[in-house]
Amino acid sequence: MVVSFTEKYPEVKASFSIDIEKIIFSGNSPFQKIEIFDSSTFGKILVIDGCIMLTEKDEFIYHEMISHVPLYVHPRPERILIIGGGDGGTVREVLKHRDVQKVILVDIDRIVSDVCLKYLPGIASGLLSERVTCLYQDGVEYVKNCDKKFDVVLIDSTDPVNVGEGLFTQEFYQNCFNLLNSDGLLVNQAESPVFTRRWLTMVSQKLRSIFPSVDFYQASIPTYPSGYWLFSFASKKYHPQNDFRAEKYREQNLKLNYYNQHLHQACFVLPNYVRDIIGNSSDYPAG
Amino acid sequence: MVVSFTEKYPEVKASFSIDIEKIIFSGNSPFQKIEIFDSSTFGKILVIDGCIMLTEKDEFIYHEMISHVPLYVHPRPERILIIGGGDGGTVREVLKHRDVQKVILVDIDRIVSDVCLKYLPGIASGLLSERVTCLYQDGVEYVKNCDKKFDVVLIDSTDPVNVGEGLFTQEFYQNCFNLLNSDGLLVNQAESPVFTRRWLTMVSQKLRSIFPSVDFYQASIPTYPSGYWLFSFASKKYHPQNDFRAEKYREQNLKLNYYNQHLHQACFVLPNYVRDIIGNSSDYPAG
Repeated sequence: MVVSFTEKYPEVKASFSIDIEKIIFSGNSPFQKIEIFDSSTFGKILVIDGCIMLTEKDEFIYHEMISHVPLYVHPRPERILIIGGGDGGTVREVLKHRDVQKVILVDIDRIVSDVCLKYLPGIASGLLSERVTCLYQDGVEYVKNCDKKFDVVLIDSTDPVNVGEGLFTQEFYQNCFNLLNSDGLLVNQAESPVFTRRWLTMVSQKLRSIFPSVDFYQASIPTYPSGYWLFSFASKKYHPQNDFRAEKYREQNLKLNYYNQHLHQACFVLPNYVRDIIGNSSDYPAG
Repeated sequence: MVVSFTEKYPEVKASFSIDIEKIIFSGNSPFQKIEIFDSSTFGKILVIDGCIMLTEKDEFIYHEMISHVPLYVHPRPERILIIGGGDGGTVREVLKHRDVQKVILVDIDRIVSDVCLKYLPGIASGLLSERVTCLYQDGVEYVKNCDKKFDVVLIDSTDPVNVGEGLFTQEFYQNCFNLLNSDGLLVNQAESPVFTRRWLTMVSQKLRSIFPSVDFYQASIPTYPSGYWLFSFASKKYHPQNDFRAEKYREQNLKLNYYNQHLHQACFVLPNYVRDIIGNSSDYPAG
């Protein structure tokens, strides 16, 4: 008998299924349902509230792209705040940068980190680094009361429903802006322009009302809805392409599976229909 | 009761389903099973042998990208050969170019064109243009015996199984090479680097053994397996990026939904793992 996991895409009345070999973990935290499956084709799969958060096969795409794009723009990204991201994948990538001295990860759900450390150590083990402090509390409250400053804030959230909802509000973005240094950067996962375009529109409008410069970049992530994902790049000072740190990129010479210096430039070039959704104010004029 | 169509992705033991409202057409031609469904979220959907060929919602992406990338590189694309593409979507885009004087479309299956003209006229009606000749015969045989020359050949095929298989052979590519003018271009759909990477590897190796220059470019097509699709760009003379015809692009001023001049450059910039699959000989050095 073949057992499969199905993620529903209710916005487009569609769904995506993967045959699974084994249920490795299934449980309810105080905040959400957490499952880890094993599959022969995608490796282990982390599912939260019915949505694929990552698979071992393609998680490198999301985690490289949310991390290296801002960290190769900021000249000295020493202090990094990650909201969400309890699986540790983003931490793993951020720690590859020599400039990074301190990572504070704030995830509401400790159990996500616990099960990932146990079952997905190749993704999660960076959480144990001396450079990382994990705080298991509400990110919305954290940024409201935080008295520290950061160079880069990465919002590695679930969708804007349930516990993720508060991480997409105007107030939350304003508080993130406030705790960034004067040359700080904020990157967040901005959903799919195809299946959930209203979420992307919302992110674009809110960020643009707060940050002087907001761009969007893309990645192809096969196991996310539509396979096509956007990230926002909100900046107080630096330009996402012109301020790419080529020298540091060459010196660090990270061996990455997705990101490279040419893709850093190209990922900001968006199709016309996406430019329409986000409001078309990128540096690239349409046409 | 909800009725849904499911496309299986056997290579990765996964599947994608869309709720459908109505079966508009279902029949077997001498070559394949052809179905057209109507859905509330993707519009009408053309399915051949269980695989989504196009949906009204996102067909513009595939058809714009297979057409405009080569047609904005060749300086005078007057004579175009399309192998496959009986649905007419590629013809529609090709005809937007003023230089195009003659399109010959060779599809093995007349019934695909017939049902698309009837049920998907917004996609297919270009097939009736005076500039277009439709030949319903085996493309493999056509290119073997053809005594005409072309500026651009577009291979708009199904997957390399069943009737599509012959459109992925060394001999077929060699015959296409032979009927191209000395500055001709060939573009073909090159499958998904994620779900069917062996097909992409095969295309890359065969084309590179024949053409002096072979590059690959990408598009995000949500309803194709993995949502991430590659096209090959095989050229006798012109460079896919350096020979972009900016002046013609501005003058024609086509109102497109996906393709734009900046994307023309950016779509050739591939992630590291894709570069590894295709053999890494693009102009963009890894790292």
